[in-house]
Formats: sequence, structure tokens, C-alpha cells
Amino acid sequence: VLDQTLLPRRIKRVRLRTTADIAEAIASLRVRGAPQLGIVGAMGVAQAALRSASRGSAGLLRDAERAGRGLARTRPTAVNLGWGIERVLARGRAAAASLGPGEVAALMVEEALRIQREDAEACRAMARNASGFLARGATVLTHCNTGSLVTGGWGTALGAIRLAHEEGKGVRVIATETRPLLQGSRLTVWELRRLGIPHALVADGAAAGLIARGEISAVLVGADRIAANGDVANKVGTYPLALAARASRIPFVVVAPVSTFDLSVRDGAAIPVEERSPGEVTGVFGIPVAPRGTAARNPAFDVTPARFVTAIVTERGVARSPYRGALARLVARGASHRAPEAPFGARTPPRRARRAGA
Amino acid sequence: VLDQTLLPRRIKRVRLRTTADIAEAIASLRVRGAPQLGIVGAMGVAQAALRSASRGSAGLLRDAERAGRGLARTRPTAVNLGWGIERVLARGRAAAASLGPGEVAALMVEEALRIQREDAEACRAMARNASGFLARGATVLTHCNTGSLVTGGWGTALGAIRLAHEEGKGVRVIATETRPLLQGSRLTVWELRRLGIPHALVADGAAAGLIARGEISAVLVGADRIAANGDVANKVGTYPLALAARASRIPFVVVAPVSTFDLSVRDGAAIPVEERSPGEVTGVFGIPVAPRGTAARNPAFDVTPARFVTAIVTERGVARSPYRGALARLVARGASHRAPEAPFGARTPPRRARRAGA
Repeated sequence: VLDQTLLPRRIKRVRLRTTADIAEAIASLRVRGAPQLGIVGAMGVAQAALRSASRGSAGLLRDAERAGRGLARTRPTAVNLGWGIERVLARGRAAAASLGPGEVAALMVEEALRIQREDAEACRAMARNASGFLARGATVLTHCNTGSLVTGGWGTALGAIRLAHEEGKGVRVIATETRPLLQGSRLTVWELRRLGIPHALVADGAAAGLIARGEISAVLVGADRIAANGDVANKVGTYPLALAARASRIPFVVVAPVSTFDLSVRDGAAIPVEERSPGEVTGVFGIPVAPRGTAARNPAFDVTPARFVTAIVTERGVARSPYRGALARLVARGASHRAPEAPFGARTPPRRARRAGA
Repeated sequence: VLDQTLLPRRIKRVRLRTTADIAEAIASLRVRGAPQLGIVGAMGVAQAALRSASRGSAGLLRDAERAGRGLARTRPTAVNLGWGIERVLARGRAAAASLGPGEVAALMVEEALRIQREDAEACRAMARNASGFLARGATVLTHCNTGSLVTGGWGTALGAIRLAHEEGKGVRVIATETRPLLQGSRLTVWELRRLGIPHALVADGAAAGLIARGEISAVLVGADRIAANGDVANKVGTYPLALAARASRIPFVVVAPVSTFDLSVRDGAAIPVEERSPGEVTGVFGIPVAPRGTAARNPAFDVTPARFVTAIVTERGVARSPYRGALARLVARGASHRAPEAPFGARTPPRRARRAGA
């Protein structure tokens, strides 16, 4: 994976050879973003299956499940992580009764790669579905980083902006810096520059004022978990943008794959919000910005109530209020539209003991 | 003055010997905050009068007025700066027809010192008037720095918090870091620690989420300019806190002296908002946090519409909606209650050419 903690100053790929490597990379945000966490979780479980020393399929599955439990604990808010892990495990479980460990591991790797491929396709579909919110000449405000770094493809909110740019709509982006870890300054600006999309950075607190002054056409953000009622957990600082958008009557649009839905969670109050280290707030790049020993609160996410969300754009279509029915319909639509499984039996399974990371 | 750009790492006082020194200190935020800008502007004009080489009172006034124009240009949003400058100049003008330059300068110095003294008294009165918004055990969210560093006394919002603390109300403070220049992390936390008031720091974007989760009892902030209709210009990032307070039905209270009112400005749209250097956003303490050459928007203030303001607490009383009449009444109350002028004639004027800064 590309180590996102070093960007934009260093472009360095790191190999994640073990479950512990992957868990560390997730916890320290070398990899991050809901869709990427889904992919990495899936790859992690597949890797554990590949590396299992068990001679039987049941033992291999137990090894993969243990890895899955360890990875799922690393970050509590993004639902995609558990979703990716569970999907690969389910594939393994379905095969373990009748196939040997080599074939089971191969199917699990195949499933993880399919998740990555599907995510790339989902990005394109989300971008098309979001295009109605991106008028010609629009100035779009976005928060945190939702681009190709965190997905298998173009990204969620940033992917939609990229499509609008490539279609020649002449869009501009205002990107929030996204304290404490500055994913906006470090990652979104870096992606926008590479794509040649005109942009400017703002402090998080300044975004609402720009909205009030009429400088923003729409707010587009991603999501880490969407509850059954449409409440959206996303990077801390999202909720005040939704409030400002509502006060100025501009669209506040969430762009996220259906894998971000968690219909088992009734509303946002039930979404666990990760509280990260105070040091991320009291320092910047390890440099102290507050007196030594200062206490800090550092929730990594906030919850935007569904009533402030203009639309949730997914790869399967656009949901609008009332969300409870709309989200359930999108989930159901996927179940019936799912592409037929590709035949795996004919393929040679990858060598189980190879060390290459996911 | 205490150089606020070096806090909390260095406690250093700098002497401002000339109008150019003072202008530089204001522009670079060595001194800052609306009430302090009023005091420093007043002192700057008094200093120019003291340093004037003119042999007549008219020439001395022209020198002081030139200094006042230069200082007023340094920062456009806080109205107190121009207010302090004008008050000292008015004192000089009233005296210039009948008194010699030494006496005129002495009266102008006296007026500047009186502004500082009045500000200290105003802080105490504001703190008393705000006490109804600070219940026992309250957790108060505040933004930027509004304490003793930026006033002649205890501060505005922070002064009110300090009084509640000293009265044993057991209040806690959540302080926003206040990007881009981190006045919250650097200055407010520093003051809170010295005062022994329990506190925690948060990233600006995290504050709204804490309000939504019911963790905050009230939001208390200062102001840089308050329009006739009650719209409040304050440090960028204030407006989203007001939106969040409204959404969660907690008080959003502005604590500011009447000198912050600008009844000549009809509403917030007419308040000029200073746009500062992009480098403040693309870097932290001079360390780049975004790719080299990144464009940034950097408004130093935002405007909170009066409809989101629960109350404006001044040294003369508390204004509530509808603000147009309430603010005008507070201004009028001051005009009739103004303390009688102290007799100056008997005093020895300070030596006109002395170099000590104001």
C-alpha cells in the first residue's frame, strides 16, 4: 500500500506481510478511508488464509477468522472494514465443507480481489449518479480525503468531482484541511493537483463562513457508516458543514457505496465513534502546538442527522428522505442485481505460502 | 506588550517604540483581540502625540492623526481599533484649541490609559452579567482566545468563565484549537492552565459533534464587530458553533464590550472581513502541511447572523433579540452613565520626547 502518513512529502509503498502489519497500518492510518478499509480488511483475511499452516480447510478458516477478529478491532467506526472481512470469510465458509485448503484460500483471495474490482466499478457508478449535483462552473466544498487513495478506483465524493472535471464542467474545489491529521491538506490537495482540478485549501472552521457568503454550490463528502435511518458518520467536522449547507440552502450530498450502509444500526446515536490519541490534537506532525500535557478530546468522526442530508449517492442509485425505506430498497436492489459468480474451479490457486502483501 | 506569537513556548515582552513598531505588532498578531486592539490603537495615537516634534498643538494633532490612519489600516474587521484611535484623537482635538502641545499630549495619554482601565472594569462587569449563562458544573465551549491577553482585565468570554471558576461553580472548558493560528491551543489553554480551570482542547471541526452529543452546556465567544442588527463578526469558525448550538438548543452567548458595537453598519454583510496570507493555512508554525504552492482561502473572521445569537453580554447589560433596539439602548445608557472626567490641569504632563512604548 501507499503509506498515506508520509504523503505528500514522500511517496512510499510499504509491504504488509502479516496480519500484524496490516493491523498496524490501519491503526496508524497508513491506509484509511471507509472503502479502502473494506478492501484492506478483505485482503487481510485472504492473506491469513494463504499463510495458514493448517492442513485442513476448517483450520485454515479458523486462522482466517482469528485474523478477521484482530483486524476488525483496529477501528470501530467504518463499517466497511467488518463488511470486507465478513464477505471473504463467508466465501471461505461456503467452500470449506467441500474443498481443500488450497482451493478455499484461492477462493478467498479471489473474493478479496473482486471486492477491490467492484469498488472501482462502484466509484464510476457513484460519480455518474452524483453528476446532477455538480452543475457547470460549480464550486464544490469537500472534507477529508475521498479520492483514489481510499478506494479501488476514482473515489467517492472526489471521484464524482473528477468525473465532472473530465466532462469539462469547469468545477472548482474548496478542500478543508481536516484537522487533526490534515488529510485535506496532505492528500486531497495532492490528488487535486495531480488531476489538474482548480482548488483552494481552507481551515475547517472557515468553510461554514464561505458557504454563508454564497461562495459554495454544493458540499460533497464520503461516509464511514450510514445508519438505517440515514444518519451519516463521517470524518469529524462533517456535521457543521451539513448545518451550514442547510442554513444557506445548498445541497449537502453524501457519496458512498452501499457497503457503507449498516441497516443493523437504527440511528446515528448507536454508531460507535472512535476516540483517537490526544497527541493528534496537541501536535501537528509531531510538533507540539499546545503546552506539554494538555488534555484533548479527539473523536475521529461525527454524526450528521439524516434531516440535514440532501441525498445519499450510491453505486446503485440516489437515496433521498425518507431514508429508511430508500436505503433498504438500494440494499435489496443489489441482492437481485448481483453479478453471477465467475467460475473459479478451473483456475490455479495462488501459491499459499507466498509472502507478498495484500 | 507580551508577544503572543511566541506563546506558549516563550514568554517575551517587546517594546513598541514607534508607530511602525505598533503597526507591525498588530499586523503580525503579536497583539490581537478586539479589546486589546482598542487599547493598543489608543496607546499608539497617544505615543505619536508624545513623540511629535511639532511646536504647536495643531501640528501635534496632525502627527497623531497620521499615526491613527496608519494604525487603523492594519486590520479591517475589529471595530475597537478605530474606536480607540478615534477616542484619543477626539480628546486631543477638544483640547488643542486652548492648550499647548505638552498638555494636549498628556491628555491624550491620560485618555489611552483610561481606555485600558475602563476595559478592565468592563471585563468584571461583563463577567457578572454573563453569570446567568454559566450554571454550576457547566461545560463551556469557547473559541479562539478572549482572556487577559487580549483585554485590559480578565477577558470577555474567558473572563466570564474565570469568574464562574472563582465563584466555585466547578465549570469545565472545552477550547477549540482555532486554526489557522492556533490561538486556542497556544493561548487559551495557556491561560486556563495558569488559572487552574479544568479544560480540554479539541480540533475546530470536532466542536459541533460534541455539542450534538450533549457534552456542552453553553458556547461563549467574544466578538470583533457587532452590527446594528446584532450580526456578530468574530474569529473564523464561530458561525458553525452558533449553528450547532442552535441545532442542540444550547445558549450561544457573545461576550463583548459596547466598544465592539458598530451601529453605523446595518448588518453583517457590510462588515469587511480580513483575508490573511494563504501561508497561515498551508503551514503550521512555518512548517508546510500542504504541497508547495497550494492556493488557500484565509478569511480571519466569519459573521454569525443575529438570529443564532442567544444573547450579547456587555459591561452595561445583556442584549437579546430583537437586537436593533437592544443594542441602541445599551449605547445610549453608556452616554448618560459615563463617569465624570477627572481633572487633568493640575497634573504634570509626561516628558514629550521620551522613548518608552505605550
